[in-house]
Amino acid sequence: MDSGATPAAVKIGIIGGTGLDDPEILEGRTEKYVDTPFGKPSDALVLGKIKNVDCFLLASSLTGLPEGFRPSMMEIIPVPEECAIFQWLSHSALKREVLIETAKKLGLRCHSKGTVITIEGPRFSSRAESIMFQTWGADVINMTTVPEVVLAKEAGICYASIAMATDYDCWKEHEEAVSVDRVLKTLKENANKAKSLLLTTIPQIGSMEWSETLHNMKTMAQFSVLLPRH
Amino acid sequence: MDSGATPAAVKIGIIGGTGLDDPEILEGRTEKYVDTPFGKPSDALVLGKIKNVDCFLLASSLTGLPEGFRPSMMEIIPVPEECAIFQWLSHSALKREVLIETAKKLGLRCHSKGTVITIEGPRFSSRAESIMFQTWGADVINMTTVPEVVLAKEAGICYASIAMATDYDCWKEHEEAVSVDRVLKTLKENANKAKSLLLTTIPQIGSMEWSETLHNMKTMAQFSVLLPRH
Amino acid sequence: MDSGATPAAVKIGIIGGTGLDDPEILEGRTEKYVDTPFGKPSDALVLGKIKNVDCFLLASSLTGLPEGFRPSMMEIIPVPEECAIFQWLSHSALKREVLIETAKKLGLRCHSKGTVITIEGPRFSSRAESIMFQTWGADVINMTTVPEVVLAKEAGICYASIAMATDYDCWKEHEEAVSVDRVLKTLKENANKAKSLLLTTIPQIGSMEWSETLHNMKTMAQFSVLLPRH
Repeated sequence: MDSGATPAAVKIGIIGGTGLDDPEILEGRTEKYVDTPFGKPSDALVLGKIKNVDCFLLASSLTGLPEGFRPSMMEIIPVPEECAIFQWLSHSALKREVLIETAKKLGLRCHSKGTVITIEGPRFSSRAESIMFQTWGADVINMTTVPEVVLAKEAGICYASIAMATDYDCWKEHEEAVSVDRVLKTLKENANKAKSLLLTTIPQIGSMEWSETLHNMKTMAQFSVLLPRH
Repeated sequence: MDSGATPAAVKIGIIGGTGLDDPEILEGRTEKYVDTPFGKPSDALVLGKIKNVDCFLLASSLTGLPEGFRPSMMEIIPVPEECAIFQWLSHSALKREVLIETAKKLGLRCHSKGTVITIEGPRFSSRAESIMFQTWGADVINMTTVPEVVLAKEAGICYASIAMATDYDCWKEHEEAVSVDRVLKTLKENANKAKSLLLTTIPQIGSMEWSETLHNMKTMAQFSVLLPRH
Repeated sequence: MDSGATPAAVKIGIIGGTGLDDPEILEGRTEKYVDTPFGKPSDALVLGKIKNVDCFLLASSLTGLPEGFRPSMMEIIPVPEECAIFQWLSHSALKREVLIETAKKLGLRCHSKGTVITIEGPRFSSRAESIMFQTWGADVINMTTVPEVVLAKEAGICYASIAMATDYDCWKEHEEAVSVDRVLKTLKENANKAKSLLLTTIPQIGSMEWSETLHNMKTMAQFSVLLPRH
């Protein structure tokens, strides 16, 4: 979340998925429970700083689901060397470029654009679905990103996704066995990469000038509203 | 809505979207509030006549939505010269032909067939969705038409849609800025074309013989029901 | 449903659709009403035997729907000579092979694999939807199979579908009239084929060794669960 016209005033919100919800990336942590007209968030907000930039972290971990995680398909090849960063809907092109540039500096393999499809989980695709999603133009599949990216845009907030592939879904026929241990190992390795990326990118974002971008975002959101006549 | 076997008895129902809900196209207007087993309509029915043909108008305007209209994407090129008329599911081929013929006489640019995709709004497509919908075979995208065309068919009622494109959705990359003012201007111009089309077509429909068409519609609806055994 | 390690202990569950719910295929029938944490099944379970193999039958007939069956499109060509058997998601390859082998012995036309799409009914596709589903890779369309095949897999139960095409959906333009009588005739002919298939295959399944398959199914289900951390 960014607000205000000077670099010092930029605030960053981090919505962390499984393995990306480590509060220790923030210094001087405090917890804050908030409520909204749409309900409470999935957890407390952890407030803190990354090299003097105000941040908050919201843990949104799949493994915390009370009903567990029972995928129908578990044909997974972990690809820990793969790191896809993309921008979807957000038009926060500047922020995306900062992330891509930093990822390259850190030596992470990185796709600079792509299309994500969000399905309702917790469930993995059947092979037929996985092949179908590819014909629809999807590069990455997940169970999040929508609707939060849409809501952020409607609120005039800059938004960027860091997507790290854990597996090839189930379209790729292979011989290897898979286990939850292996999936968790991949998630942990990915999480370390994401942490490096955040710790390097956020100070850079904090030192940049965002007022024009934010003005444009808010103007677009404002002019996208047709007011009711009654 | 058409009923009865002689031209004089035909009744026309007009479901008007944004800008197409002007009650002044009807002469001798009265209002009627109705209720149905499925709930109340979005507004009162306005009863009246167009050149002696019984009509009713139901306003169903997007701008009347209490929660406003907050699209995520507003990359719009108005194309006021474009007028697409198509028939979908309705099999009311005769009525469609009357509309197409009239549109040509009035000098309106007109596609005589096409496929519409209906999404749940109020929200515009992302660019990825827009490209995906094209691969699905969609020519036009909107937030209405379904389920009303399905319900009309199940009730044996002739149905035709007049679809007027307001923009190219967001798949077409371009340089132009857009504003709500511009969108509303396009809607208003489209509405005037639709009014001409209705005022010219409806008297012609009223003078035609519909009994065979209506008989076929009702027979098809009747033979499409498998009765419960219990 | 299969359980236990010796052939004698295998149990077969039959979920019968329209025309496939004839309890007379079972010998020594008794009825049993069961309840589950997810609600009651659509009917009583009929317990009985097919040549000494324990079976139960659950009737799940579309024509029993209280609200009737009012499809929007009824452009149907019955193709009673067509019999498609496929396995989807279930990975119960051995069981599928037994069914295919038996179908061939009985002289039934049979596709050994394919992709099914499940839509929410009771409603038939529009022509545009039917063409779209083909571009998605679908070979057969129905209103069942999902979610039961997913739930079976998550419970470690072997599952196979017997799909018998009743019509070409509505994508194929043709001249023939259609009636509910004709559809019901096709369903009845299909049902007789399915009965032969079940009466021949089930004793064969009962005489086979399933312990390794069942062990693998249960292991996969077990290792597909990520436990909640809280």
